[in-house]
Amino acid sequence: MPKRIHTIVLATALLLTLQPAIAQTDNLKMATQQELDVVKVLLKQESAWNRGDLDTFAQAYKNAPDTLFLSGTVHRGFDNMLAEYHQNYPTKDSMGTLSFSALEVHPLGDTYAVCIGRYRLERSKKLGGTAEGLFSLVLEKTADGWKIVVDHTTA
Amino acid sequence: MPKRIHTIVLATALLLTLQPAIAQTDNLKMATQQELDVVKVLLKQESAWNRGDLDTFAQAYKNAPDTLFLSGTVHRGFDNMLAEYHQNYPTKDSMGTLSFSALEVHPLGDTYAVCIGRYRLERSKKLGGTAEGLFSLVLEKTADGWKIVVDHTTA
Repeated sequence: MPKRIHTIVLATALLLTLQPAIAQTDNLKMATQQELDVVKVLLKQESAWNRGDLDTFAQAYKNAPDTLFLSGTVHRGFDNMLAEYHQNYPTKDSMGTLSFSALEVHPLGDTYAVCIGRYRLERSKKLGGTAEGLFSLVLEKTADGWKIVVDHTTA
Repeated sequence: MPKRIHTIVLATALLLTLQPAIAQTDNLKMATQQELDVVKVLLKQESAWNRGDLDTFAQAYKNAPDTLFLSGTVHRGFDNMLAEYHQNYPTKDSMGTLSFSALEVHPLGDTYAVCIGRYRLERSKKLGGTAEGLFSLVLEKTADGWKIVVDHTTA
């Protein structure tokens, strides 16, 4: 095979091989550092929950009196939230297994971001049963990292 | 009455009269221009809905493909939203009477804001009945004014 044709064949083969990867790269939006940082907050939260560590779970939220939790009604303040979590989930067993999915980060400039996703809490029927739903979070970039300032979670 | 005592009595009377107003001012956080501007978007929206004008109602949202609507599931894009509204509310009667209450604006810097509140949609049973619930909105300050970029509404 002449060298020129050989090169074309090789180039075509390479192109065909790369095609799916190229197409995939076109469709995939590369994640920014901001998006990764926000997702990490949620993964850390999920992991803390699943080892029964409510205090670390709560660190994803901004420790402020105006942090908002909407779930049917409006709840206010980090301290109230943490107290309610401890009351509603007194033991590791009562916390079940939490998993987040379909996480999407939508930056609002450099300092704020919205994260939406789905949660699923698997628990025995005796302890309240499995629950799942949708959430939207607003996060703020603070000196202590990204913190949730508004949490709207629904079944 | 000597002038001095007269003055003291007058001053005391004035103070007692002003007391409730002062106390109220202490409790009330003065609204910023940003908060007023965001609330106006919602009041305009409410008024557009109640005269059956879906297109003006929809102008409160950012006309972009990544505008998000969460209500049980995730819906995307201004055009889809408007088409769904027109499909679900084909006549002025089917739209009923909308009222917002308990509106709160929480600024996220100068360019973004969260607005939470409650909605109530009064309709005859035949047309779907009365519905009410909670919402959280993220708004962006654009060249065309404040626009909703994320709407999370729940029953």
